[in-house]
Amino acid sequence: MTLYSNRFSRSLDPLAAMLNNSLPFDQRLALEDVTGSLAWASAIAQAGVLDDHELVVITQGLTQIFQEFEEGHFEFREADEDIHTAVERRLGELIGATAGKLHTGRSRNDQVATDFRLWLLSTCQSLQGHLHHLQATLVARAEKDMGIVMPGYTHFQQAQPILLSHWWLSHFWALQRDQDRLDHLRQELAVMPLGCGALAGTALPIDRFQLARDLGFRSPAPNSLDAVADRDFAAEFLFWAAMTGIHLSRLAEALILYSTHEYGFLTLADAYSTGSSLMPQKKNPDPLELTRGKAGSLIGRLTGLLTLLKGLPSAYDKDLQEDKLPVFEAVDTLALLLPVMAGVLSTLTIHPDRMRQAIDSQVLATDMADYLVRKGVPFRSAHGAVAQAVRRAETLGVKLKDLPLEEWQAIHPDFQTDLFLVFDVEQGIARRSAWGGTSPEQVTEQIRLAKSLLPG
Amino acid sequence: MTLYSNRFSRSLDPLAAMLNNSLPFDQRLALEDVTGSLAWASAIAQAGVLDDHELVVITQGLTQIFQEFEEGHFEFREADEDIHTAVERRLGELIGATAGKLHTGRSRNDQVATDFRLWLLSTCQSLQGHLHHLQATLVARAEKDMGIVMPGYTHFQQAQPILLSHWWLSHFWALQRDQDRLDHLRQELAVMPLGCGALAGTALPIDRFQLARDLGFRSPAPNSLDAVADRDFAAEFLFWAAMTGIHLSRLAEALILYSTHEYGFLTLADAYSTGSSLMPQKKNPDPLELTRGKAGSLIGRLTGLLTLLKGLPSAYDKDLQEDKLPVFEAVDTLALLLPVMAGVLSTLTIHPDRMRQAIDSQVLATDMADYLVRKGVPFRSAHGAVAQAVRRAETLGVKLKDLPLEEWQAIHPDFQTDLFLVFDVEQGIARRSAWGGTSPEQVTEQIRLAKSLLPG
Amino acid sequence: MTLYSNRFSRSLDPLAAMLNNSLPFDQRLALEDVTGSLAWASAIAQAGVLDDHELVVITQGLTQIFQEFEEGHFEFREADEDIHTAVERRLGELIGATAGKLHTGRSRNDQVATDFRLWLLSTCQSLQGHLHHLQATLVARAEKDMGIVMPGYTHFQQAQPILLSHWWLSHFWALQRDQDRLDHLRQELAVMPLGCGALAGTALPIDRFQLARDLGFRSPAPNSLDAVADRDFAAEFLFWAAMTGIHLSRLAEALILYSTHEYGFLTLADAYSTGSSLMPQKKNPDPLELTRGKAGSLIGRLTGLLTLLKGLPSAYDKDLQEDKLPVFEAVDTLALLLPVMAGVLSTLTIHPDRMRQAIDSQVLATDMADYLVRKGVPFRSAHGAVAQAVRRAETLGVKLKDLPLEEWQAIHPDFQTDLFLVFDVEQGIARRSAWGGTSPEQVTEQIRLAKSLLPG
Amino acid sequence: MTLYSNRFSRSLDPLAAMLNNSLPFDQRLALEDVTGSLAWASAIAQAGVLDDHELVVITQGLTQIFQEFEEGHFEFREADEDIHTAVERRLGELIGATAGKLHTGRSRNDQVATDFRLWLLSTCQSLQGHLHHLQATLVARAEKDMGIVMPGYTHFQQAQPILLSHWWLSHFWALQRDQDRLDHLRQELAVMPLGCGALAGTALPIDRFQLARDLGFRSPAPNSLDAVADRDFAAEFLFWAAMTGIHLSRLAEALILYSTHEYGFLTLADAYSTGSSLMPQKKNPDPLELTRGKAGSLIGRLTGLLTLLKGLPSAYDKDLQEDKLPVFEAVDTLALLLPVMAGVLSTLTIHPDRMRQAIDSQVLATDMADYLVRKGVPFRSAHGAVAQAVRRAETLGVKLKDLPLEEWQAIHPDFQTDLFLVFDVEQGIARRSAWGGTSPEQVTEQIRLAKSLLPG
Repeated sequence: MTLYSNRFSRSLDPLAAMLNNSLPFDQRLALEDVTGSLAWASAIAQAGVLDDHELVVITQGLTQIFQEFEEGHFEFREADEDIHTAVERRLGELIGATAGKLHTGRSRNDQVATDFRLWLLSTCQSLQGHLHHLQATLVARAEKDMGIVMPGYTHFQQAQPILLSHWWLSHFWALQRDQDRLDHLRQELAVMPLGCGALAGTALPIDRFQLARDLGFRSPAPNSLDAVADRDFAAEFLFWAAMTGIHLSRLAEALILYSTHEYGFLTLADAYSTGSSLMPQKKNPDPLELTRGKAGSLIGRLTGLLTLLKGLPSAYDKDLQEDKLPVFEAVDTLALLLPVMAGVLSTLTIHPDRMRQAIDSQVLATDMADYLVRKGVPFRSAHGAVAQAVRRAETLGVKLKDLPLEEWQAIHPDFQTDLFLVFDVEQGIARRSAWGGTSPEQVTEQIRLAKSLLPG
Repeated sequence: MTLYSNRFSRSLDPLAAMLNNSLPFDQRLALEDVTGSLAWASAIAQAGVLDDHELVVITQGLTQIFQEFEEGHFEFREADEDIHTAVERRLGELIGATAGKLHTGRSRNDQVATDFRLWLLSTCQSLQGHLHHLQATLVARAEKDMGIVMPGYTHFQQAQPILLSHWWLSHFWALQRDQDRLDHLRQELAVMPLGCGALAGTALPIDRFQLARDLGFRSPAPNSLDAVADRDFAAEFLFWAAMTGIHLSRLAEALILYSTHEYGFLTLADAYSTGSSLMPQKKNPDPLELTRGKAGSLIGRLTGLLTLLKGLPSAYDKDLQEDKLPVFEAVDTLALLLPVMAGVLSTLTIHPDRMRQAIDSQVLATDMADYLVRKGVPFRSAHGAVAQAVRRAETLGVKLKDLPLEEWQAIHPDFQTDLFLVFDVEQGIARRSAWGGTSPEQVTEQIRLAKSLLPG
Repeated sequence: MTLYSNRFSRSLDPLAAMLNNSLPFDQRLALEDVTGSLAWASAIAQAGVLDDHELVVITQGLTQIFQEFEEGHFEFREADEDIHTAVERRLGELIGATAGKLHTGRSRNDQVATDFRLWLLSTCQSLQGHLHHLQATLVARAEKDMGIVMPGYTHFQQAQPILLSHWWLSHFWALQRDQDRLDHLRQELAVMPLGCGALAGTALPIDRFQLARDLGFRSPAPNSLDAVADRDFAAEFLFWAAMTGIHLSRLAEALILYSTHEYGFLTLADAYSTGSSLMPQKKNPDPLELTRGKAGSLIGRLTGLLTLLKGLPSAYDKDLQEDKLPVFEAVDTLALLLPVMAGVLSTLTIHPDRMRQAIDSQVLATDMADYLVRKGVPFRSAHGAVAQAVRRAETLGVKLKDLPLEEWQAIHPDFQTDLFLVFDVEQGIARRSAWGGTSPEQVTEQIRLAKSLLPG
Repeated sequence: MTLYSNRFSRSLDPLAAMLNNSLPFDQRLALEDVTGSLAWASAIAQAGVLDDHELVVITQGLTQIFQEFEEGHFEFREADEDIHTAVERRLGELIGATAGKLHTGRSRNDQVATDFRLWLLSTCQSLQGHLHHLQATLVARAEKDMGIVMPGYTHFQQAQPILLSHWWLSHFWALQRDQDRLDHLRQELAVMPLGCGALAGTALPIDRFQLARDLGFRSPAPNSLDAVADRDFAAEFLFWAAMTGIHLSRLAEALILYSTHEYGFLTLADAYSTGSSLMPQKKNPDPLELTRGKAGSLIGRLTGLLTLLKGLPSAYDKDLQEDKLPVFEAVDTLALLLPVMAGVLSTLTIHPDRMRQAIDSQVLATDMADYLVRKGVPFRSAHGAVAQAVRRAETLGVKLKDLPLEEWQAIHPDFQTDLFLVFDVEQGIARRSAWGGTSPEQVTEQIRLAKSLLPG
């Protein structure tokens, strides 16, 4: 029997009921639903709907239900079409007809929006913890790997030499933007729909500011129509999840490349590798590949919800029930990907020699142009001269640093013997010493700054 | 113990194992996996890997496993990381070391691609059955509601009167395109990866044409590298699902509108309506709203897979494991939405009077222009004259059909008394009698054509 | 001749050049590019690369180029492959070889990221102006239409009566969240990439904090690798655009419905309506339909950029050049949709009588349940009793308010003659007087609050 | 003056007009629009609307307009709101009032759908030509590079040795599926909307089968409501574009990797490479990176249109006008990417030595397991034994082929001296000789098959 069965001559078609039933996923909001009801009971008691005794009875009943959920022995019935119905049904079993007073002045529309926001508020906090852990792992690697040099890439081509620590930290800042986005989202989440009824507000004299404080919200929603139909926060959460997924995917892709036979810069721990059913030698970076793949699914979930929202006029429509599954799936995905990535990072082995040997002397070409600049040659001409040298070396089949002096001088008279001093990777790195650059001092400074952003 | 544990010094990190484990979803391929293995056993026996006895033993073992799955008492173990591992493990329990011969010359890469295609081939057939049922329901409605007139809309504004049956049939043709797309997909699915090994082909003298015939494929895949990395078919399936979802959503949106208090054209059966926890009078079209909402998720699933595929170089990568969940979810969604829509359609009540009363006489304005055309006025001038009449009627606050003759004649001298004969809805409909139009004869012809496309 | 033609034996294939050429769109960054170069010239002068005279010469040249862009007579050449090349080429024409010194220590990677952020910073400000204008229009309508009642909907079904002003304001708050998102984005945009070089930082002793202040940034980016490859801000902008598009689409959809013949709640001004080439009577809400359609494209643009970003490893790759077109298109779209919507709103005509007549007495069913609650009946039982009455009225074919007293009393003895007093729409509205509700006092309070958020 | 200005008291607001104006993009349909009108003139002449003289006059006028478009001197006027209006306006200028008869019985709804299908039909043919050219380029490379061996990869890790020609051909088959999809789409496109009017069909006795033949369509659309609102074909085209984009992106990604310093398998021609403004040595694969990036945008365009379609009820709405821009952009993108990729492929240089040297002897581990299988060891045990050997070699820090015999024998007694014969890459390749495998015979056979699918 549903909450509204008096209204209809027959019950839902079984397939339609299966379509309609949200309990398989919204039971995840069980604790928040009971918490919201406890606060609502107080609020309507203050508004005169419940007397003292009724409030006590309802509160005791709800508290017991809370425990049943926490301890995992709450029993659902087949007729429970959603978590709200299940709780109200159980309350009736425990305390009888008084249970029927709890829903006075409230609708499932404001109730579910409140539950969902409460759940996401605490989930965002826990995801921020996962993010912090991964950021701390990156800083720890940056500290541990200080001094290791590697080729820096643009366009997948060697560009300039950098410190590995600088590279690790580059991912720290992307995740820091994800932290900032969650901070903003938490502000947005902290607006309370409860007390908005189905759409028009509640007819009871509820103090919604008090109710918001009781439940830990910043303020009550200022417009009841908007409050029950607003799912911006769910979309914004999925955008956050997509961006965070992208950051993890970009890191994963780089690690997958660096762990190939061809790059050979690092080896993943066996604890984060898998093998092949056919090829005995294989050691595959499955967790990183799945990270990359799941980032695709996260983008799809965002698209799905945005598409749903775009299809509606302003108002609550049942379509909005489809907001929860993608959010839950995104949470579960990231609650797995973030710690797995931290595990991958803290257990992989770096091969500093392979990194150094991989550096082609061409990557100091910019420094060679700077050499001419220091002699007064305009950069654009210096750039052109070095480009010619690079091409000449390729034609002769020698490395740039092995191009004979006379060849350099044939290109530009300002090249002198001291040009060969430029082919020093460490000095090339040390020269990038403006704020944000790859020089050891700047990277050390960057580590200090990054640490200051991590919780105690 | 995994298939490849000899390769590694330690086992997978528990969270990474959770990420890696595909059994929760790929067990859905159990029957196809065993079917593929039965055919593979024959093929490698013919290639000399198994002797007659070994083939019998393996075949018996696999047959028993097939039954265990069918009867629902196959027991998974925690160490089973996917359905292939589970089947091979169980075969070992049943027949001993001979089980270890089955995977000769095969890889999970070609195996899973084969399983997935087999599964989708039969799933597409069953989805085509659901589509046919819904199409037949539309035709049945068109036959039953023959003669009922309604306003036809463009831009949400009344445009011209039409037959309700014509409107029902308009949805038939959209679904017919979905049928055609599935026909094309089934052709594409019927290409067999088995015998491609991990990527390079198999070193056994397998007759892949024979193998393809055994498994019901059209032909073996012509390139082993492509065969194991190709997921076009999964993307094409999700595109089909998205388009079908869109067709259902567009129909659902129209039915939702027509069932409002304001339109009042139809009433949904109680079996496809739900109520409100707060508002006693509410009767909501939840199944149709959820249809609309789930169409959004289907688009998201397509986007997710396309994004994943775009991120890969050509080759098999583990990311591809993420192909199955969205396909399974899309199948489950449509296997619910299609019959629910058929249920909604066959049980709703039409209100012919409301439909007819809703028709504003303005919707015959095009016929009024045609009236002038018949008197030799070029259409563009006729159109302008009637537009003036419409505006004049609005200014005077009368309906178009109540605009006095002198007003008409002030606009154009060719308007005569017989103009009022044009305001006959039935005749307006009957005049649209070219092929594909809304006249009763054409709609009857259309029903005949539609029926010819339905199976026996 | 390109900036790097010394490096290559032959020039780009013509089709590849067409693919590569970003000038058709990035010329939109012309003013920001020159502004950035002016500040860069000062910075490298301070770093000793330019002497005082050179700085003056370069500054004069750039200032002239700025004017040429502003006045629209800058001439592009076919060989200009992007805006940066065009400006450097022109500078050379104006001041000779000294121009070749400007690019010292800088790369197009940090340059374009800086240009783009500068451009978006000022664009966001102008978009916030458009948003404010639309918000102010909504508040003005709420004030003007105060006192008009209409049916409130959920599930497209009449739910409870509300004030039209409350409905207008519900859209104000959605746009306020869009404002908040732009505030957050502006914080994120205000981080300066300039001085990060191609990837590793600059080898010049640049004071990047001073440079940031000169250009109006909050701070320099702390990691050069991240700074040149970060496009989070572009994705976040497109997410903002998609959400704002959704808000406009939901409002547009509602207005389209309310302007139909069937609802008849409002009429769009002729200035925002179009006609038909065939049907003389048609008056179509094209601008609103296109608003709805373009919201779909905005979601597609977000998806496109996210997909692109997901496919990359961490580092600058040329793929990132595809970031600008979707952002420019989204800006142009919203710079049109926002003022058009304001125009639609301020010119439409409301039909208060149609709104009031449309209200079915069933929408007071919740109030009828509250009536029983006030007599001590638990809400759940009250709800059930009224649901029975609704059904009974439907069976008898009468309106709920016309159901005879004896029928009510047969259902529940607490129904008394005074029940008919509940069927007063104004009182039903006035009762929703908790914060955020639809009562006149609350709506007046809401208008006050909304006004406080608008700029002077 | 618009086609419908008699209907309205004032003209469109300028911003709304800008929003509404589709001429900037739909003028691309000019030739198809005139072609459709020529056929329509014949059809309505046959239906008695035009006399012989009028038909001649209209035909002459339209023919002149066709020429004006072809020769590029058709002049648009500011008031032309779309291509249909422009053509009708010009016809009036050329032939006077008779022009006003052309639109009899027709609507822009059926007209634009017909124009768009005609345009796409011929565009698909030209895109198939581009596809064929790229496929032929792949086959030519496969023939030219026959005999070159390379490591085959899965999970970015070396898996088994393959022929480079086999790898080239793997991309042929992906493109062949794109060909098949276009074949299917062309069938779907060849259904004619003309003669469906605005929605309800035409009131003229038009022979739509004759009309379809005249315009090269397979058949007239069977339902007028569906015909004007159906945009499945545009969505299916964008899905085709997205899949083709993905295929190009996957190939591009692989080529980018193979052209890195670290892989060193190939060098792109200078004609398909670009340099850096800062780093003189850089040679970047920009065209391939942009290919990868634009594949992201293509996915976004598909998402955008699907989202738009999902938001509509069944019927023509103005939102559908947003169908053309994404299709045009996708066509332009692929008409550039396909020939550029063909250019990249036909001009790049392969480094066979680097490919061969890169092969690690571990990639023959599967063959080593097969060695044991040939001695009667079940594959699963053989796999385990070889995995142990791989791990042992890693522990000892030697290559697998340098692991001493006694180590092999300590793992499994069936390893004998002849095991070292297995470490022969050519033989490893030759053994994969089942249909679809990488052996030279099979690849030769595959080339033959591929060629048979290419046009003359």
